[in-house]
Amino acid sequence: METSQNHRHVLVINIGDELLDGLRENGHLKWLGEQLARRGLPITRSLVVRDRADDIAHEIKRGWGTYDLIVTTGGMGPTSDDHTRESVAKALGVTLQRVTKAEADLHERFSRIGRKVSAADLKQCTVLAGGESLVNDRGTAPGIFYHQGRTALVMLPGPPLELQPMFENEVVPRLRSTGCACQGEAYVQVRTFGVGAVPLEEMVRPHLAPGMVLTFGTHTGIVDARISTGQSGASADELCEVARRVRDALGHDFICTGHSCLATIVVEQLRCMEKTVALAESCTGGLLSDAFTDIPGASKVFAGSAVCYSNDAKMNILGIPECLLAQHGAVSAECAAAMATAAAEKFGSDYAISVTGFAGPSGGTEENPVGTVYLGYASPTGVWSQRIFLQGDRAQVKLKAVNAALDWMRRRINKYGVEDLINGG
Amino acid sequence: METSQNHRHVLVINIGDELLDGLRENGHLKWLGEQLARRGLPITRSLVVRDRADDIAHEIKRGWGTYDLIVTTGGMGPTSDDHTRESVAKALGVTLQRVTKAEADLHERFSRIGRKVSAADLKQCTVLAGGESLVNDRGTAPGIFYHQGRTALVMLPGPPLELQPMFENEVVPRLRSTGCACQGEAYVQVRTFGVGAVPLEEMVRPHLAPGMVLTFGTHTGIVDARISTGQSGASADELCEVARRVRDALGHDFICTGHSCLATIVVEQLRCMEKTVALAESCTGGLLSDAFTDIPGASKVFAGSAVCYSNDAKMNILGIPECLLAQHGAVSAECAAAMATAAAEKFGSDYAISVTGFAGPSGGTEENPVGTVYLGYASPTGVWSQRIFLQGDRAQVKLKAVNAALDWMRRRINKYGVEDLINGG
Repeated sequence: METSQNHRHVLVINIGDELLDGLRENGHLKWLGEQLARRGLPITRSLVVRDRADDIAHEIKRGWGTYDLIVTTGGMGPTSDDHTRESVAKALGVTLQRVTKAEADLHERFSRIGRKVSAADLKQCTVLAGGESLVNDRGTAPGIFYHQGRTALVMLPGPPLELQPMFENEVVPRLRSTGCACQGEAYVQVRTFGVGAVPLEEMVRPHLAPGMVLTFGTHTGIVDARISTGQSGASADELCEVARRVRDALGHDFICTGHSCLATIVVEQLRCMEKTVALAESCTGGLLSDAFTDIPGASKVFAGSAVCYSNDAKMNILGIPECLLAQHGAVSAECAAAMATAAAEKFGSDYAISVTGFAGPSGGTEENPVGTVYLGYASPTGVWSQRIFLQGDRAQVKLKAVNAALDWMRRRINKYGVEDLINGG
Repeated sequence: METSQNHRHVLVINIGDELLDGLRENGHLKWLGEQLARRGLPITRSLVVRDRADDIAHEIKRGWGTYDLIVTTGGMGPTSDDHTRESVAKALGVTLQRVTKAEADLHERFSRIGRKVSAADLKQCTVLAGGESLVNDRGTAPGIFYHQGRTALVMLPGPPLELQPMFENEVVPRLRSTGCACQGEAYVQVRTFGVGAVPLEEMVRPHLAPGMVLTFGTHTGIVDARISTGQSGASADELCEVARRVRDALGHDFICTGHSCLATIVVEQLRCMEKTVALAESCTGGLLSDAFTDIPGASKVFAGSAVCYSNDAKMNILGIPECLLAQHGAVSAECAAAMATAAAEKFGSDYAISVTGFAGPSGGTEENPVGTVYLGYASPTGVWSQRIFLQGDRAQVKLKAVNAALDWMRRRINKYGVEDLINGG
């Protein structure tokens, strides 16, 4: 009684020497993994191969007919190491045909920047006979959609800025209209913080209808529960109703449904209240500030950050009293509270967060070993600080401290936002 | 006349549902790719499969005897979705044997933290008959090294903090002693900034001996040239001599040989001069500060950063005059210079860098469209600013601006460090 969606076999082939030689992260896999899973097409298997025509042809031949969907990335450009088009055509025994529309687009694009179109450039404007050319708004290489027998083939250019809009605008509608992808979303994701995967499972299970499928993802303190229809035959509305019940059961551990990051949520909270936040960072060293400024439009609510690594900077920039640092140390609840208060004052913001701790590998004391972090929080209602302990190397401690700080702020605004509005005038 | 090193076939199998469902970046591929390439074992092909016993066994069977080296990551832990050990044993038709030493280590580790050892935990302390157990200093799951016929098999745990030291300390020596990996380094890498791959190739080619192999990697403004022995039969010393000649030809476009990042180089320059740096960031929003504080020991030279997103923050924190902002705007050469000067003053540092620009997606003017960034630089010798234009989305503009700022500082210290020392007293 499984729905047909559960039977799709999906192969992703990322093409590029740089991915195998440690020169570039294969970011496509994570991005496509999420996009495909959301459309009911979780990746069955993924491959990375070199820019070699024979290798590419070999994998396409091997996968053809055994997968419902094959997605390739890379090797679609005009240079001599771009082989994907020719290799795939050879493997499938079809010819490449010129696409007049794509050629015209290329001529127009190049004429705008005063560049001449070469024969190598035109090589990009071809499509497998019987396939469709996919418009590339952001670059020169169009993609290809080709559906024959059981298998749909999607060929995408390598640059993420070209691949991502092409996938969303050109590929998803075609996958839906051919019945390969599901309509709507394949699962609802409930994003949480502060509750482990095991207690979260105990909390979610009772709300599931028989046959619904539950999977988990954990990343730097965040735990996602993905609930999908599975064999339950549940509708999208019924999935949403489950998500709502889980949300209510979770209380303040619930971040959101969907994929928003903690910084997005906090920026949204502040925007709704028309309030601003400033930061005073020591051990996170600018990473918390970076998380805020990654959000387009953050400038509306983000006043700024004082990254004060040294005691001198804490005194000169934030005005932390020397006697406080001498008595309690820079890694202390007292210093965290003073830093948060000072950040709100200096930047003239309504809220402030501070982070001070030992990210390692050196530093730390017997009382406060590496991994000890103090968070400070200043709001119109008052000032608080708390001690947390984080495991991992320097980079992980920084990242976990950022998420812990964002989550603390999110929670406090949830609980005390109304008081803050009253107290803040 | 190719050396045998050029013939190695290497397969990497990353195991884990989370890698295919878009929940986690497959960071192992980049890390292992670089580590293996450096040892003369560039990855031929890479696979990501789900935590399913049959899938894992299938891939091992298929690869056995056709690859010289197979590396697996993940699925080595104690939980019910960890199948790698059993699947591989089944695929190869060998038994799993208890490793008394590993069991003793596990008992000791757990007794220290007051935890009881379960049967599931002990499952980790087994090895393929005829193989070797690899010590895991950072976690509970030992790795496995198994060499039979043509193929060496390396099985590593999933967490990077456990995998990486195990690979360096336990695996590389075994790959060398079995003749699979080369002694020393397989290539020299010349890291550059400010020169494209095409002109770099023209510059490097004349220095190569016949048969030497040249490959390129580009990432966010950095271009790496990797020079390897290939069929030339050149020794490590001869490769280094080529790298030295390339370095001399490159002048200030040369960053380093090897893999150091720009922030590491700048921190090292400052440490040698016993000087400090401060930052004033607008559009990079803390990312430049984060790059400095990612380097262990950066606190010796890094005073801090003022992330001043709003005009108010630029005035209140840095003391930028309101009339300067009104006359020239926050995204201007004048503002960049004033920000750098102010950062050096406020933080009491010898040097300062500032960044102000439009990272997008909104903002920008006709004169200064999105992607326009002004860098400011203050040293004991004087203050400079420059305008650069960067393409890409918000995240890419931030990243490129960070590298451009670091590279500018690196260059100026290279050229004028001596003057700075004299002027700085």
